[in-house]
Amino acid sequence: MTYYNVAVVGTGAVGKTILEVLEERNFPVGSLKVLATKRSAGKKVVFKGEELVIEETRPESFKGVDLALFAGGGASKEFAHEAVKYGAVVIDNSSAFRLEPDVPLVVPEVNPEDVKWHKGIIANPNCSTIIMVVALKPLHDAARIRRVIVSTYQAVSGAGQEAIDELLAQTKQILNNEPISPQVFPYQIAFNIIPHIDRFVEKDYTREEMKMVNETRKMFHDETIAISATTVRIPVIRSHSEAITIETERKLTPEEARELLSQAPGVVVVDNPREQKYPMPIDASGRDEVFVGRIREDISSDKGLCLWVVADQLRKGAATNAVQIGELLIENNLI
Amino acid sequence: MTYYNVAVVGTGAVGKTILEVLEERNFPVGSLKVLATKRSAGKKVVFKGEELVIEETRPESFKGVDLALFAGGGASKEFAHEAVKYGAVVIDNSSAFRLEPDVPLVVPEVNPEDVKWHKGIIANPNCSTIIMVVALKPLHDAARIRRVIVSTYQAVSGAGQEAIDELLAQTKQILNNEPISPQVFPYQIAFNIIPHIDRFVEKDYTREEMKMVNETRKMFHDETIAISATTVRIPVIRSHSEAITIETERKLTPEEARELLSQAPGVVVVDNPREQKYPMPIDASGRDEVFVGRIREDISSDKGLCLWVVADQLRKGAATNAVQIGELLIENNLI
Repeated sequence: MTYYNVAVVGTGAVGKTILEVLEERNFPVGSLKVLATKRSAGKKVVFKGEELVIEETRPESFKGVDLALFAGGGASKEFAHEAVKYGAVVIDNSSAFRLEPDVPLVVPEVNPEDVKWHKGIIANPNCSTIIMVVALKPLHDAARIRRVIVSTYQAVSGAGQEAIDELLAQTKQILNNEPISPQVFPYQIAFNIIPHIDRFVEKDYTREEMKMVNETRKMFHDETIAISATTVRIPVIRSHSEAITIETERKLTPEEARELLSQAPGVVVVDNPREQKYPMPIDASGRDEVFVGRIREDISSDKGLCLWVVADQLRKGAATNAVQIGELLIENNLI
Repeated sequence: MTYYNVAVVGTGAVGKTILEVLEERNFPVGSLKVLATKRSAGKKVVFKGEELVIEETRPESFKGVDLALFAGGGASKEFAHEAVKYGAVVIDNSSAFRLEPDVPLVVPEVNPEDVKWHKGIIANPNCSTIIMVVALKPLHDAARIRRVIVSTYQAVSGAGQEAIDELLAQTKQILNNEPISPQVFPYQIAFNIIPHIDRFVEKDYTREEMKMVNETRKMFHDETIAISATTVRIPVIRSHSEAITIETERKLTPEEARELLSQAPGVVVVDNPREQKYPMPIDASGRDEVFVGRIREDISSDKGLCLWVVADQLRKGAATNAVQIGELLIENNLI
């Protein structure tokens, strides 16, 4: 068995989860470096029972590194190309390179073949997009999706550890009738929802919404799929949910969709309305699969189908998907 | 000025809000009776500074009553027809009579003309439906809506006072790492969401979802509008939110929609993405208007439009709408 020298860049919510997932999946880690900004350097993390000291990221940090997992944020633009120069393959959680034509954007259940043409950097998609495409891929393969309308219910941890801390602290303050002062989110998030994630871009859509459009098209290799998204932050700690309506070229019955999804990799069907079984954030948290339920005919369309999809966006939506890309590189001798 | 003998039946979250709204709007109340089940009888409520003793509802309670506002629940089926026999006009918040052909279902901003053919009972629509149709009516009048896809984000108070209490108590328990035991909702609602409101009925849709379909069609007098809904309970205390995508016969631009909505009765447009202005539950709570924002082209369709709609479901979604129906009856000399 070959072992690889791995670097994890970033020690926030996603970085920590990457370490957990590397350990759990027994990724063949030879040596491990944990890199972060100066602010975190010197602090310690535990991996497989051993303490590791976090180092400040520098270009030369990547000397001898085979695989660099960037947890997202500003480090990617600053250091990803440097890491590649030192011979590392980069799996990047940030949005910096996702739409670049020479960077594959990969979800292993969706477009594993795209890892093969990487030129040093492979991008990990946006969390909401990953969760959606894992559920849609088997349906697209079977009946060709022509249109997607999606409304999201996104957990605060998508905005990092500070966002979790803010929700919990703010909730306590409100329960105690104390004043609040939002820092991470633009408005109160406890007992409230905010229909605004990332900044506003074209046509009054947000960047988060346009990521779901553009990244899905790139991974499906189909620029003709019509997609519209509304992304909403809700006071849930972990796991994103999505109400998805699709239209397919060939009509898919709920029964057929359920059958396809039951056999799809990375998907768990939880769909028994009579027994009140459907996916929920509390059940998906800590899990690697994408949970799909409320599969039913879209009664507003001839060829429509509705789905309710939930997954842990720190795991499958970020860390797990990145580590799975690493596994795919190994399987394909691309590292 | 004529004054009317009014009865309010039910003293839960909706019943209490009806009393508030009657007082605030200076409804011409001559005498007021507050009726409820035996369990609440003998307790007191305050109306215009005066204490009133709650009486147990009996058929003869309606003797001399001009207008009976039923706050919802089982009392409607048991007593609404009795109230009518005693000569009262009934405005009913329950779902018992909404789809009966001889009962008008009314939102004053949408179909005020329908009060005219009442035969004693006028039904108040489901809260999520009221909120949606107030926003959609001006767009339907201008461009004829052909299809609606809606995902809801519904506050717990839609399930009554016990549901508010459960959310608050459960939130505290979770913050203190104490065990929880859901009673009102089938699962944990604090820091979680549940894609299930009311019971499952045809085609794996819930009754709440089908109310949005059937009640909208009835009020728009158009059985050909295609509607599909996904209704979801979220950990917000008050005010429902809805992500709505419509298709119209004639294309509506976001600018035209914004203009139409700005002039529509009962609607407030809050739509300035650059300044981070959009409707949210915390801003809508305690208000009577329906707030509309995130008005934008549906980029997945030629004739599509997306909207984000928020309103206080205890006020416009229930109590305020019921009292407004009462005002409409008075204006039309129908009481």
